[in-house]
Amino acid sequence: MGISLGPNQYGKAEVRLVTVRRTGGVHHLRDLTVSSALRGDLSATHLTGDNSAVLATDTQKNTVYAFAKQQDVGEIEDFALRLGQHFVGTQEKITGARITIEEQEWDRITVDGAPHDHSFSRSGGERRTTTVTVHADRAWVVSGVDGLTVLKSTGSEFHGYPKDEYTTLVETDDRILATAVTARWRYEGFTGIDWAKSHREIRRTLLETFATKHSLSLQQTLYAMGEAVLQARPEVAEIRFSLPNKHHFLVDLSPFGLENHNEVFYAADRPYGLIEGTVVRDEAEEPGPAWTDAVL
Amino acid sequence: MGISLGPNQYGKAEVRLVTVRRTGGVHHLRDLTVSSALRGDLSATHLTGDNSAVLATDTQKNTVYAFAKQQDVGEIEDFALRLGQHFVGTQEKITGARITIEEQEWDRITVDGAPHDHSFSRSGGERRTTTVTVHADRAWVVSGVDGLTVLKSTGSEFHGYPKDEYTTLVETDDRILATAVTARWRYEGFTGIDWAKSHREIRRTLLETFATKHSLSLQQTLYAMGEAVLQARPEVAEIRFSLPNKHHFLVDLSPFGLENHNEVFYAADRPYGLIEGTVVRDEAEEPGPAWTDAVL
Amino acid sequence: MGISLGPNQYGKAEVRLVTVRRTGGVHHLRDLTVSSALRGDLSATHLTGDNSAVLATDTQKNTVYAFAKQQDVGEIEDFALRLGQHFVGTQEKITGARITIEEQEWDRITVDGAPHDHSFSRSGGERRTTTVTVHADRAWVVSGVDGLTVLKSTGSEFHGYPKDEYTTLVETDDRILATAVTARWRYEGFTGIDWAKSHREIRRTLLETFATKHSLSLQQTLYAMGEAVLQARPEVAEIRFSLPNKHHFLVDLSPFGLENHNEVFYAADRPYGLIEGTVVRDEAEEPGPAWTDAVL
Amino acid sequence: MGISLGPNQYGKAEVRLVTVRRTGGVHHLRDLTVSSALRGDLSATHLTGDNSAVLATDTQKNTVYAFAKQQDVGEIEDFALRLGQHFVGTQEKITGARITIEEQEWDRITVDGAPHDHSFSRSGGERRTTTVTVHADRAWVVSGVDGLTVLKSTGSEFHGYPKDEYTTLVETDDRILATAVTARWRYEGFTGIDWAKSHREIRRTLLETFATKHSLSLQQTLYAMGEAVLQARPEVAEIRFSLPNKHHFLVDLSPFGLENHNEVFYAADRPYGLIEGTVVRDEAEEPGPAWTDAVL
Repeated sequence: MGISLGPNQYGKAEVRLVTVRRTGGVHHLRDLTVSSALRGDLSATHLTGDNSAVLATDTQKNTVYAFAKQQDVGEIEDFALRLGQHFVGTQEKITGARITIEEQEWDRITVDGAPHDHSFSRSGGERRTTTVTVHADRAWVVSGVDGLTVLKSTGSEFHGYPKDEYTTLVETDDRILATAVTARWRYEGFTGIDWAKSHREIRRTLLETFATKHSLSLQQTLYAMGEAVLQARPEVAEIRFSLPNKHHFLVDLSPFGLENHNEVFYAADRPYGLIEGTVVRDEAEEPGPAWTDAVL
Repeated sequence: MGISLGPNQYGKAEVRLVTVRRTGGVHHLRDLTVSSALRGDLSATHLTGDNSAVLATDTQKNTVYAFAKQQDVGEIEDFALRLGQHFVGTQEKITGARITIEEQEWDRITVDGAPHDHSFSRSGGERRTTTVTVHADRAWVVSGVDGLTVLKSTGSEFHGYPKDEYTTLVETDDRILATAVTARWRYEGFTGIDWAKSHREIRRTLLETFATKHSLSLQQTLYAMGEAVLQARPEVAEIRFSLPNKHHFLVDLSPFGLENHNEVFYAADRPYGLIEGTVVRDEAEEPGPAWTDAVL
Repeated sequence: MGISLGPNQYGKAEVRLVTVRRTGGVHHLRDLTVSSALRGDLSATHLTGDNSAVLATDTQKNTVYAFAKQQDVGEIEDFALRLGQHFVGTQEKITGARITIEEQEWDRITVDGAPHDHSFSRSGGERRTTTVTVHADRAWVVSGVDGLTVLKSTGSEFHGYPKDEYTTLVETDDRILATAVTARWRYEGFTGIDWAKSHREIRRTLLETFATKHSLSLQQTLYAMGEAVLQARPEVAEIRFSLPNKHHFLVDLSPFGLENHNEVFYAADRPYGLIEGTVVRDEAEEPGPAWTDAVL
Repeated sequence: MGISLGPNQYGKAEVRLVTVRRTGGVHHLRDLTVSSALRGDLSATHLTGDNSAVLATDTQKNTVYAFAKQQDVGEIEDFALRLGQHFVGTQEKITGARITIEEQEWDRITVDGAPHDHSFSRSGGERRTTTVTVHADRAWVVSGVDGLTVLKSTGSEFHGYPKDEYTTLVETDDRILATAVTARWRYEGFTGIDWAKSHREIRRTLLETFATKHSLSLQQTLYAMGEAVLQARPEVAEIRFSLPNKHHFLVDLSPFGLENHNEVFYAADRPYGLIEGTVVRDEAEEPGPAWTDAVL
């Protein structure tokens, strides 16, 4: 009975790249974390240790830094495309590259009411992301946001769920709803898209929909956010969400003779609800390898 | 143009369960983290907020605790199967359940040379895991280990890789090789398997192969570990690995007039290599939904 | 030879408190993490397990929640003072209380250009803090910021340091300077201070000084920030800093035939420089127990 | 009114050092994280940016690596003493050095029943630590353990505490007691001590006392552990503890018609009790700067 090599990939993870570009005396700062993963005919190194097809992960790291010098980084989607096309185009045995970039934003420090030329403070925990998969003649772009933490203190209900022998939860028509949005949207095609504007508008749509949609379940909020993005942004084929339900439990103050009209909450760490879902445009092109992480 | 709901699931993540079972005066401790995710016809809650199919995640949590009382937890695979079959068997709209359990081991404290009856110290950062997917008439079991951190201080080479214009890495015939093994193996079938023995023997095989296989690349070590597991354990259909290459760089001591014969190393955090791969038995049954995380 | 109990304290750590206050339809959100530690004659519980002086940490937690209902939380310094005075005032054996509060800020989500009534997104990783120590007749207030991460891409030099046999660092007259500011300032007295304004102005002074001070060392920047705060804010007796020097190393691109004019950097994780220092007003009152963590 | 520089120190934090020593074909692995902090007359760099007294933190890092080559590292206390004495002895303006080292243990992998020559797996989350403070003619050694996580499933009670208007906790005569021991012990003197044996015996005493001491409060357990160490180890002057009370709450299964006889628990993350205390030998020498962290 035989044993074979199945799906595999390898690369360099979390290359920390900071760039400074100058226009006159004004500095422009970028803070990226770049991961590359290469796929192709890699059976030799697995079976015999023959590394003739294995572009070293150290070389992949060097390539990130050199490319950041040779041309302005630009939008993370474009930078990822350039890196992926380079690896696939120059390494004979490499047929696919998957480049993931996270971007951390920095704000200019305000001095005397004006933004400073070269001093910055780091913005929040939110990060803009992209994962670009490149084949010889095509590419797929999935961009997103991580760590967009939001909360609404009313406008959320939860009731009508099944009651079985293990159900103790009390129905509510007014609760805190909080989550840390992880969203990933897949683009139709990979050219002619204004990545920055698309990201900005999708982020705005997510926030506005979360804020204004009266919620009967986090699932309903998820779908509404996805639908709004697809309606507003024709360049998006599909959007996926992972939404932890960050529970805020009303504290029982009755032992102290106090009423608690949705005023005092305990924010719990674990366990948490986890709502995951996809909203897709009916005529969207097939995703191909856009979502396929190789292995685990 | 229409917009639709795509793949989705929901559940309670990271329910922290500790159980104590007593045989005479001897206590037996278990420390599990249980996550449940349910799938099925969940369009109503997404589209209209009708929760009549949504067994509350709070109820899922309660079920974990109640089940832990009603029957001895047993092996994590069995506990996950029972939970999954309960959810699929009792909720009309739920057609699939995915239960993930991590187990943290504790050792008995030694007192006067003997293991203590009811006092324990926590073992290392390694965890045993399982992810069980249950449908109406079948189940798929993927078990594994997380955080099994290993290092060999010789018996590892790396050379023969392509040299392009961005390559600066120097070839070596003696380096430290270190990784934190994340492994997941898929079982053939889900009944009649001695889960504990299987886990114990796979873990032993992974460690022994890592230790004794002379390595020309981490990919070669990966494949050797997978092959050894499949050769030794017929109950395993397939095994997948995610292996960070935890770089240990030789420190250049020449500025201080010192030679460094693989004696003094700097252990780097980021970036790191990331080697991912699958080793599969040729006649293995199809994986079905065993590996399919719903969304992200 | 005798053995005795030395300094000790106990309490509840990291009580997660979220409050919602309503003015008309507008909701006001607060997100605090409260820790309490009590000191006094606690020898009985240590020596014999007699807990008659040990107000349960569970009760301390309940007190936090009840107080948050009974009166508007207000500034974190005021809330900490109320809690500390309650514990010292009502528990005979408790002679000191130390209340630490961290506040996470949330921004209102913008909808159609206007701030939303009840929907929020979490601001960055920065947190406002206070540690208030209360005795029967006095209190000491130490407030601060955590995680204020800043970077300047020029205006920083480092040279003139000693060269010994282990020195390889090259002098520079232009480098990136980056740190995550942890600052703690001790107030003169504990009454009549506009805590919110003081925090806001100190934060502004720290940022402006970091931005505008030409730096010959991170120590010089530290002192300049402290001096500026003391000059601007008479209510502050002393300010202390812990400033990691978050190294951004210029990437050597010469192997690729490229020059790197402070454009492309590698942001390192570890090791990091760690600069700690105090700036104090000469006539400041004695700190008493303001800085004294009990034990470790 | 004047403003002055107060207490300060600076250094390199978290230098990751891994060493391999060979005796015949057998490799010996050490995994240390070393932090150095220097004190002295450092006003010039703070006030004017004159760095003539500032041994670069990069040089401190280099010194750690060079010293690890020039002489076998030995016990972490000895390595810290050598480093500290070097900095104080060679830098005119530096009057004090504080060296902190954490050691991560690795076990040999077992192959065919025997420990392997050069392959290792990382032991648990526990770490051995030391902080050594060196002045021109003296040194102080504080060693310890971090992350020694322990649990007893019976033999712990908690009752007799005050009941005030905010008390809801129910007294118990049988609960789980769990903590992650952080302990630091100060030695009498700094020469002639068998550091390895002392650490091993103190660790054993802590575990045995935790296991066997019937506990009426975590404070009582703390004191008993400290007293046992001081009674067994004359080289120890004082021991300090920080013990989080890792709550394991009995799950209320009565809604499901089930009794819970201390069998099923929820392990909570936050909040947690935090018990801190010191046990000291009456005739111990004064601690001097042993415990004095410079600033924050």
